[in-house]
Amino acid sequence: MLPYKNLIIIDKTSHIAVFKQIAVQFIGLIQKGKLLPGTKLPSTRALAYDLGLHRKTIMAAYDSLVSEDWIDSLPRKGYIVSPNLPFVKPRSYNSNGLSAYENEPGFIFDSLSSYINPSSPSKKHELIIDDGLPDTSLLSPGIMLAGYRKALDYPTLKKISTGWDLEGSLDFRNSLCHFLNQTRGIDITTENLLTARGAQMAIYLSASLIIKPGDKVIVSDPSYFFANMIFERFGAELIYVPVDHDGMCTEVLEELLKKHSVKLLYVIPHHHHPTTVTMSTARRNELLILIKKYQIAVIEDDYDYDFQFEYAPYLPLASGDHEGNIIYIGSLTKVLGAPFRLGYIVAAKKFIRSAAKQRLLIDLRGDVFTEQVVSGLIENGELTKLIQKANKLYRHRCHFAAELFAKQLGGIVQLTKPNGGMALWLQFKNDFPLAKVIANAKGLKIIGSVYSKERNSNFNAFRFGFASLNDEEIIKAIDILKTTIHK
Amino acid sequence: MLPYKNLIIIDKTSHIAVFKQIAVQFIGLIQKGKLLPGTKLPSTRALAYDLGLHRKTIMAAYDSLVSEDWIDSLPRKGYIVSPNLPFVKPRSYNSNGLSAYENEPGFIFDSLSSYINPSSPSKKHELIIDDGLPDTSLLSPGIMLAGYRKALDYPTLKKISTGWDLEGSLDFRNSLCHFLNQTRGIDITTENLLTARGAQMAIYLSASLIIKPGDKVIVSDPSYFFANMIFERFGAELIYVPVDHDGMCTEVLEELLKKHSVKLLYVIPHHHHPTTVTMSTARRNELLILIKKYQIAVIEDDYDYDFQFEYAPYLPLASGDHEGNIIYIGSLTKVLGAPFRLGYIVAAKKFIRSAAKQRLLIDLRGDVFTEQVVSGLIENGELTKLIQKANKLYRHRCHFAAELFAKQLGGIVQLTKPNGGMALWLQFKNDFPLAKVIANAKGLKIIGSVYSKERNSNFNAFRFGFASLNDEEIIKAIDILKTTIHK
Repeated sequence: MLPYKNLIIIDKTSHIAVFKQIAVQFIGLIQKGKLLPGTKLPSTRALAYDLGLHRKTIMAAYDSLVSEDWIDSLPRKGYIVSPNLPFVKPRSYNSNGLSAYENEPGFIFDSLSSYINPSSPSKKHELIIDDGLPDTSLLSPGIMLAGYRKALDYPTLKKISTGWDLEGSLDFRNSLCHFLNQTRGIDITTENLLTARGAQMAIYLSASLIIKPGDKVIVSDPSYFFANMIFERFGAELIYVPVDHDGMCTEVLEELLKKHSVKLLYVIPHHHHPTTVTMSTARRNELLILIKKYQIAVIEDDYDYDFQFEYAPYLPLASGDHEGNIIYIGSLTKVLGAPFRLGYIVAAKKFIRSAAKQRLLIDLRGDVFTEQVVSGLIENGELTKLIQKANKLYRHRCHFAAELFAKQLGGIVQLTKPNGGMALWLQFKNDFPLAKVIANAKGLKIIGSVYSKERNSNFNAFRFGFASLNDEEIIKAIDILKTTIHK
Repeated sequence: MLPYKNLIIIDKTSHIAVFKQIAVQFIGLIQKGKLLPGTKLPSTRALAYDLGLHRKTIMAAYDSLVSEDWIDSLPRKGYIVSPNLPFVKPRSYNSNGLSAYENEPGFIFDSLSSYINPSSPSKKHELIIDDGLPDTSLLSPGIMLAGYRKALDYPTLKKISTGWDLEGSLDFRNSLCHFLNQTRGIDITTENLLTARGAQMAIYLSASLIIKPGDKVIVSDPSYFFANMIFERFGAELIYVPVDHDGMCTEVLEELLKKHSVKLLYVIPHHHHPTTVTMSTARRNELLILIKKYQIAVIEDDYDYDFQFEYAPYLPLASGDHEGNIIYIGSLTKVLGAPFRLGYIVAAKKFIRSAAKQRLLIDLRGDVFTEQVVSGLIENGELTKLIQKANKLYRHRCHFAAELFAKQLGGIVQLTKPNGGMALWLQFKNDFPLAKVIANAKGLKIIGSVYSKERNSNFNAFRFGFASLNDEEIIKAIDILKTTIHK
C-alpha cells in the first residue's frame, strides 16, 4: 500500500467536504501517474484507519470516483484504478501541445506594451503617479457602506435581481438623468440614457454600432489611446487632426471633411486626453457648424466634465445645436474612483435601444448593484458634495503642482495649467531622454500615459496625475524627477 | 421685466450651487425661446431683489453665462441675450431631425423581443418565475458588508485603484485559482485565468478572438440563446446538433465534423441551458476523443457547476484530456446572485493574455472592487458555506417542484428531474398553447426562457427557475398554471 497518509492531506478547517477532498486528491494521483490504471486501491476500512477517518467518508469518496469513472468497483475484489481511463494525461493548460485556438493569430495589441506596464507589484514607499485618478480618500466609507447596506436589504436586492432594464436600472437612470440635466445644460429623458462599464464600454458600444471596416474616423493627434484602439478594432481608418492650445483645430478638420467621407468624429472638448486642453468657445461653435454641415456622427467623450474647477464651467458640445448628431459619453468613475466604473451614453432613443441590445451580448445585466448604491448617492446629495469637495482640493493641487514644476523644472518641463481635470501634461524637448528618466526615477512609478520620442511617438510628454497626490507627495515627486534629470 | 421670480426656481436644499442653478435655468429659458437673442436681462440688483438673493450670486451666474457666450455684457448697458447665439434650437435628443448615426442600420436583434420582455414594473404580489436565479436571501448582508468595509479601507482601496492587473486583480485570481483547482479537478495557475463580467463577457471575449466572418460554429439545439447571438454577431454560421437525455449527440456531432471544417464547438455539459440535461460519461469520453481528433476549439460553458446537488458531481470536460483545446468558462453569479457578475475564462496562457487585451477595450479595468470583496469570501470560507447551504436548499426545491408538477400537471407537462442547477425544463405537447397560457397566467410573471411553437420555435417549453422560490411560492405558481390551463 502506498503511504496514503502522506499522499492524501485532509484540511479539516477547509469548507470543502472531506470526502471531496479525498476524491480530488485521488484524481490528482491518477493524473500524475502515481496511481496507474489497474492499481488496486486500499480497502475503505484500511484507508479509513490510515487517515484516521470514518469508513463512510472513504466510501463516499470512492463512490464519487466510481461515478466519475476514475476507479472501478470489482465485486468481491474491491476498488481498482480504472483500466480504461478516459483521462490519462495531466489536465494542465501548460502543456506545450498545440491547442486549436492557440494557433489563431487572435487579436494582439503589441503596441500596448509600451503604454501599459504589466503591474509589477509596487515597491514599498514607491510613489505612484497615475494618469489622473481621483483621490479615493475623499470617498467616505461610512456613506458608501450605508449605500451598500440599503442595496443588500432583501426586497431591494430581490428587485434588482429580477428586474431587467436593458438600458440600466431605472432608479439609477432616473437619478442620473436628473443630475445630467441639472449640470450639463441638456434636456433628456431616461430613454436617451444607457449605462455602461465606464466611458470605455460606452465608446466601445457606440463604435460597434457605427463603424464598419474601412470607415474613416477622425481623432485628434494625440488622442485617447484606448479609444483609437477600439476604432481600429472595428476596422476604421484613423485620420488625425492636430490639437493646439484652443483644442482640436477646426480649420484642419474642415479641410479633411471636404476631402474624405468621414463616418465618425471623436472629440474630448474638456481637459482633452492626454493634453488637458479645453476647447475654446470659438472652436466649439465652428465644430457645431461642421457637424451639421457634413452630417457626421460625433462621439463627445466628456469623462471628467465634473472637474472644471476654475470659475465658469463650459457646457458640453451636446448642449449645443447638433441636430442629434452627438453621442455624449461620460462617467462617474472620475468622481467615485477607478474601481467604480459607471459610464453612460446619451443619444437618440433609437440608438440607445440598439446600444442596449449590443451591451446585452457583452455584459448581460450591467452593474445594477453599484447603480443602486450610486443612485442613492445622487438622491441624497452626497455625489454633489463629493464633487464640490474634490473640486476644491484638485484646484489647489493643480496650481500647487503646476507652480512647483515651473519653479523647479522650468527650463526643462513645458506645461500649460489646465482649467480642470486631474492631470498635467508635461512636455519635454525632442532630445530629452524621457523614457530613460522615467525608468531611472527611483521611488517613482509612472502608471499613466507616456509618449516618448525614444519609442517613436510624435510627442515627448507624460501625464502627471495630481488629483490623487497631497502636497507632500507632489513635492517628493518633483524632487525625485529633478534629481533624476540632473544626475 | 419677465416674472423671473416664477421662472427661476431656486432649490436651497439642493447641493448644486445657487449661481449654477440660476445659470442653468437661464440657459433653459434661452433654449426654449422664452428669452430671444438681444433681450435685455434684468440688472443684477433687480434680479437679486426679485429672487431674494445676494447680488454677488446673480453676478456669478451672469459671469458664468457670459463666459459661455449665452449672454453678452455691454459696457454701461448691462446684460443681453447674445445676438449671435451659437445654440438656438432646443438641445433635446427627441427632435425628429435625422441624426447622422441614426440612419445606420446598426445592429438590431429583432428576434430578441420574443425572448425578453422589456421589464414592465412587476405588479404587487406578482410571483416572478425566473430562468434559474439563486435565492438572494441566502446572501448574508452582514458578511457582504464586512467584505465591503474591508475593501473600502483606504490602503486597500488605494491598492486596487492604482493596481492594474490586465487579467483581473491578483488577489482574486489567486483565491479563485485555488478554489477552481480544488473543486474542478483542474491544475491551473493564475496565468490561465481571466476574470470577466459574468459568463456572458467571457463567451464574448473568447468568441471575438476565435471567430471570423463565415466560420462554422457548432451549438446544441436548443442552446443558450445569448451565446448564439454572440457567435452570429461575429459572423459565424451556426450548425446545430440535437440534445437528448444524455446531452449533446456525439454521433451527429462526428458526422458534422467529418463534413464541415468547424472552428468552434460550444457545449454546456452540466445542466445544459435550456434543457437542464447533464451529459453522460460515455458522451463526455466520445466528445474528448472528437475534440482531439478534429482539433477544434471548444468553449465549455459551466455556468452552474457548483450546483450539482445530487450525490457525486461530474467534473468538467476541462479536467479531461483535451490537449488544451477547451476554453473553460464559469461564473460566480449563480452563487452570489444576478447583480454580482463575476465570470472567468480558464485557458492557455497565451489565449488569456490576448483575451485580457481584448477585455481592456471593453471594460478598462474590470470590477476590481467586487473582486476584492469576493476574494475575501473565498479566503474565509464563506463562499463554500454559501454553496453548501444553497445546494441543500435547491435540492429540496428541485424535488419538491418536480414532484408537484408531476402530481398536478402530469398529463400536460413533461419534465426530467435534473441532477443539479436551478431550473426545470417544462415541455409541452406541440399543440399546447404555451405562449397564451403564460400570457394569461394571472399573478405569474415568467421572465426566463420561453420557447413556443406559436412563435415558430422548434420547442414548446419553458424554464421554471425553482431555486429562488420557497415551497409556498412553488405551490402557488403551479396552482396558477393549473388554473390557467384548465380555464
